[in-house]
Amino acid sequence: MEMSARATRAKAAVDVVTTFFAKIQSAADDPDALDFTFGNPHEFALPGLTDALRAQVEPQSVDWFAYKTSEPAAQQAVATGLRTEVGLPFEPEDIAMTQGAFGAISLALALLADAGDEVVIPVPGWFCYEPMLHAADLVPVRAALDPGTFDLDVDAIARALTPRTRVVIVNSPANPTGRVYPEATWRALAEVLDDASARNGRRIWLLSDEPYRRIRFDGIEFASPATAYPWTIIDYSYGKVLLAPGQRLGYLALSPLIPAAEREELREALMPIGLAIGWGFPDAVMQYSVPALEHVSIDMAELTRKRDRLYSALVDAGVEVTRPEGTFYLWGRAPGGDAQAFCDALAERGIHLMPGTLFDQPHHFRISLTATMETVERALPALVEVAAEWGAAR
Amino acid sequence: MEMSARATRAKAAVDVVTTFFAKIQSAADDPDALDFTFGNPHEFALPGLTDALRAQVEPQSVDWFAYKTSEPAAQQAVATGLRTEVGLPFEPEDIAMTQGAFGAISLALALLADAGDEVVIPVPGWFCYEPMLHAADLVPVRAALDPGTFDLDVDAIARALTPRTRVVIVNSPANPTGRVYPEATWRALAEVLDDASARNGRRIWLLSDEPYRRIRFDGIEFASPATAYPWTIIDYSYGKVLLAPGQRLGYLALSPLIPAAEREELREALMPIGLAIGWGFPDAVMQYSVPALEHVSIDMAELTRKRDRLYSALVDAGVEVTRPEGTFYLWGRAPGGDAQAFCDALAERGIHLMPGTLFDQPHHFRISLTATMETVERALPALVEVAAEWGAAR
Repeated sequence: MEMSARATRAKAAVDVVTTFFAKIQSAADDPDALDFTFGNPHEFALPGLTDALRAQVEPQSVDWFAYKTSEPAAQQAVATGLRTEVGLPFEPEDIAMTQGAFGAISLALALLADAGDEVVIPVPGWFCYEPMLHAADLVPVRAALDPGTFDLDVDAIARALTPRTRVVIVNSPANPTGRVYPEATWRALAEVLDDASARNGRRIWLLSDEPYRRIRFDGIEFASPATAYPWTIIDYSYGKVLLAPGQRLGYLALSPLIPAAEREELREALMPIGLAIGWGFPDAVMQYSVPALEHVSIDMAELTRKRDRLYSALVDAGVEVTRPEGTFYLWGRAPGGDAQAFCDALAERGIHLMPGTLFDQPHHFRISLTATMETVERALPALVEVAAEWGAAR
Repeated sequence: MEMSARATRAKAAVDVVTTFFAKIQSAADDPDALDFTFGNPHEFALPGLTDALRAQVEPQSVDWFAYKTSEPAAQQAVATGLRTEVGLPFEPEDIAMTQGAFGAISLALALLADAGDEVVIPVPGWFCYEPMLHAADLVPVRAALDPGTFDLDVDAIARALTPRTRVVIVNSPANPTGRVYPEATWRALAEVLDDASARNGRRIWLLSDEPYRRIRFDGIEFASPATAYPWTIIDYSYGKVLLAPGQRLGYLALSPLIPAAEREELREALMPIGLAIGWGFPDAVMQYSVPALEHVSIDMAELTRKRDRLYSALVDAGVEVTRPEGTFYLWGRAPGGDAQAFCDALAERGIHLMPGTLFDQPHHFRISLTATMETVERALPALVEVAAEWGAAR
């Protein structure tokens, strides 16, 4: 065994995902496969994205491809967008451009937490929090969401806090459940975090993971916990709204409500720590594209149609589904209760869902709505049939 | 103080660089500034680079911008190149594509080392090793190069090894000295590392930092330590040979001589740990470009002319200069002995060199040969004049 202990832990934490990923990649070689697993594009890239890249690969100065940290025009465009969306007076200096949300989370963890510090994460939640925490030598502490509604369970978070808690990660709109949490939830959480910070004599930071912020249905409002709890840092990725996770672009944003001295300390650290974690700044071409990309989005009307079609069909078939308020995922309870068996039966018919086992939820499954409507229509008859079979067998 | 202890250490270790960087950025606003500081481009991007990017931003499939780990065609092209250049039978599975050498070093450190492990680095050497080690919670241990020739001092490395040493970092062609080390050096080092590993009962790994591998003068041969010491991992960046560090592209390569079981263990960890450190894979467009970019390079003939011109002029002016065998840097001893004062005097004349203080070498300076020949010619009269003044004053 030559690997470090932290790499060994990180690898073990993500093995279920990488194994599933490899299996799906070979299944996807079948041109008839109906793939609802990862949030990957299934249609040609958005013209707005390709246009931006095409424009920005043409050098306009000798330093076009020189070392880039956070480009001022990108920071400015992000701050402007955040002011509207989050409703707080962000300034360009609060923004660190990063290689997607992954990069932003790495930066936040390095900035704030030391080896052995505990980080509270939601369960079910994104399956990469745990491996990332292990790689950063931090200790993941799980706090369950409400098992029925998948609401944020503030009491469960309160119970997960210890004197070693340094960061709490929240995610709204939430992967995999599609839930969007209201402001009242954040106010309750803020109270809990404030009390615990006082008790600990050390600030507990909130990391608000918001890559799906712009992907919401039915005009539901977005509330960021940054408005309720000053010690909040936001990470964002353009990979979701552009459906282009292979071109890394995201940011970390310091809340303007962070007390001045701490905000200044963290601002000054964004560049050097971005450097120290591995020059975690996006490619020049991606940074130049930010002002244009701020106004590009997947087709929300079409995404809504896919959500509605699948949600209704599954509910009609007797499947318990959490109605997605945001994200491009649909989260349901496997008919019969065994998600792995249900997903295996569907895979035999060429339909690939993600079993909840990847989220430590063996009774549930996730459907990615990034599949095309044609794929949805092709899959539905068998999906409904298998759901009915397994539901009846229970 | 809200920052983590590791971020605080990392920031302190790079403050001298970021402060200098900020100073130079404002100095460079003067259109007459003659900038020889960082290894940044001063001419328009290589047509081969722009051509590759222009071709690859056009989507050729629906998953063109989907999540990318290490693209097989990129791994294949890298392995083929390494077989020729390093002379060992690399296979595509030995290669992890990364966001430049920074990303490759982060990946190597996470793979191999745990909090508190010691990592030996050369002094003078690249000023980002230390902040990166601090951010990864590792302990930098400095081993001085030979103070006259800047040869690798194998005895100094031997003295720096302790029971906690996990990794030794070497760099040839070497930044900032321009030295290229021969095979005999690596054989001597291998013996030392083998003995110490046996003594420690734990393997000491060698990280060979080779971003300047293709930038060598006078037909000098390249020898990688991978040929001498099986437990070697190579990091590489395309940022130097393409002079485009703002488009992140590099790789980590496992030596084919690593014993089979360990090689297999590390191969299987490249993807999950690449994910866990922050999805450290290059952008899709950059990965697609690798087969083309393998054959693109800065103009070595022009670079040689700049080296020759500056080297001869400085030697004629009585300056002690290490003749660069590789890299695009020229390393000299400041006339008068005080590099900061010498560089300040030149800065007043609009000529910006990098003082050795950034490398903990207060008597030396570094000149980046990425400045244009026109800049070299414009700077030379004043450079020679100031050198003569300061040399005489000694």
